[in-house]
Amino acid sequence: MTLKLVIGNKNYSSWSMRPWLALRGCDIAFEEIVVPLYTDDPADKARIVSHSPAGKVPILVDGVITAWDSLAIIEYLAERFPQAGLWPSEPGARAHARSISAEMHSGFPALRNECPMNLHRPVRPVELSADAKANIARIEEIWRDCRVRYGGPFLFGRFGAADAMFAPVVTRLHTFAVPVAAETRAYMDTMMALPAFAAWVKDGLAEDWIIDRVEKV
Amino acid sequence: MTLKLVIGNKNYSSWSMRPWLALRGCDIAFEEIVVPLYTDDPADKARIVSHSPAGKVPILVDGVITAWDSLAIIEYLAERFPQAGLWPSEPGARAHARSISAEMHSGFPALRNECPMNLHRPVRPVELSADAKANIARIEEIWRDCRVRYGGPFLFGRFGAADAMFAPVVTRLHTFAVPVAAETRAYMDTMMALPAFAAWVKDGLAEDWIIDRVEKV
Ligand SMILES: N[C@@H](CCC(=O)N[C@@H](CS)C(=O)NCC(=O)O)C(=O)O
Ligand SMILES: N[C@@H](CCC(=O)N[C@@H](CS)C(=O)NCC(=O)O)C(=O)O
Repeated sequence: MTLKLVIGNKNYSSWSMRPWLALRGCDIAFEEIVVPLYTDDPADKARIVSHSPAGKVPILVDGVITAWDSLAIIEYLAERFPQAGLWPSEPGARAHARSISAEMHSGFPALRNECPMNLHRPVRPVELSADAKANIARIEEIWRDCRVRYGGPFLFGRFGAADAMFAPVVTRLHTFAVPVAAETRAYMDTMMALPAFAAWVKDGLAEDWIIDRVEKV
Repeated sequence: MTLKLVIGNKNYSSWSMRPWLALRGCDIAFEEIVVPLYTDDPADKARIVSHSPAGKVPILVDGVITAWDSLAIIEYLAERFPQAGLWPSEPGARAHARSISAEMHSGFPALRNECPMNLHRPVRPVELSADAKANIARIEEIWRDCRVRYGGPFLFGRFGAADAMFAPVVTRLHTFAVPVAAETRAYMDTMMALPAFAAWVKDGLAEDWIIDRVEKV
């Protein structure tokens, strides 16, 4: 039984990128189902709701089991495919990886609003609020702290769940030409060079769906 | 080595309530350290930062291991105390419990803003936005679906992590006298009758710290 992942447009859907990257980055086979978001066609939304009562992507379907929400999907995959090593094996590092992942999952609203993921947007800066700047400073601190402590090049050594959780932020900082420390840029370059990351971006750039609201930013 | 949980004011700190309830509701021994939030004394914030670089409560300290963020702490506890059964043991139910917990963790911003947790606020309604009403409708659906599917009285039979994640919402719906379905009220009553829940509320009502901003709502 093939694992199915229902996702939104790769150009825009930041939450979808996370489990997709976790799967592809760990070479776990799956079928992807792309549903364009925020279209005029109610059938698109109906397709999402047919998979999950939350009515949002991403959604993972594994036979009779359904998981939705990017973080819950990643926890599911970590249990289902222990050999993928999505979380660090050492309990302290694992608690750390989960702490920053859940911190990301529930926070950073200013950065999310002011710098929406939009892969085909020309790289250029925007004026950021003080809240967004504080969000970015905290993210730089999180990344620096992990890479110093665990030796890099990814947050906990090799690619894993925490990197997948922060991947959309990598694109945001890049697209909005946010001034960052050299070590932050080094982590962004590591992520962008990951074959799974590059494959997602390539697919996103090939899409021709447009979400007007996001294009205004 | 005693487990330590650093939390904010019990009257206001919704995120702190979750892991506290998970611990107490499962009879896991711990020491609590209460730090009042948003005071004029910078020493209070410094105490939080001394435990976690994220600078927010709740924070769990277990010897040399630190976990912060309510959901990450609950995942840590679920691994550390498997006999507590914080997540359902059946994989499909566990994926479901994690999906609604992560959905709660990252969503429902309108409800959070318009109905902040404030245990001592007199019970009375407010005018809610359409977004907040949609948030509440989805929460009622989540609770109904779980209790029908797993038989109640808690979301997955007996008290667990998902109930802890939704506990602050129970207080919000109660305090802001939100009109809800009878089965929603039944779940709220089940939660409020849980000894750990009642103990948290009692402690919160005994505090005399005031956060002005929240009292205006
Ligand atoms: N917390 C959820 C958020 C999911 C979410 O908001 N998805 C958006 C797209 S990135 C969505 O499905 N929007 C479609 C809609 O609301 O109709 C997660 O991490 O999966
Ligand atoms: N996502 C975090 C959020 C924690 C959070 O925002 N905590 C608030 C209080 S409920 C806090 O510590 N605020 C103090 C501050 O920002 O100085 C979690 O679930 O633990």
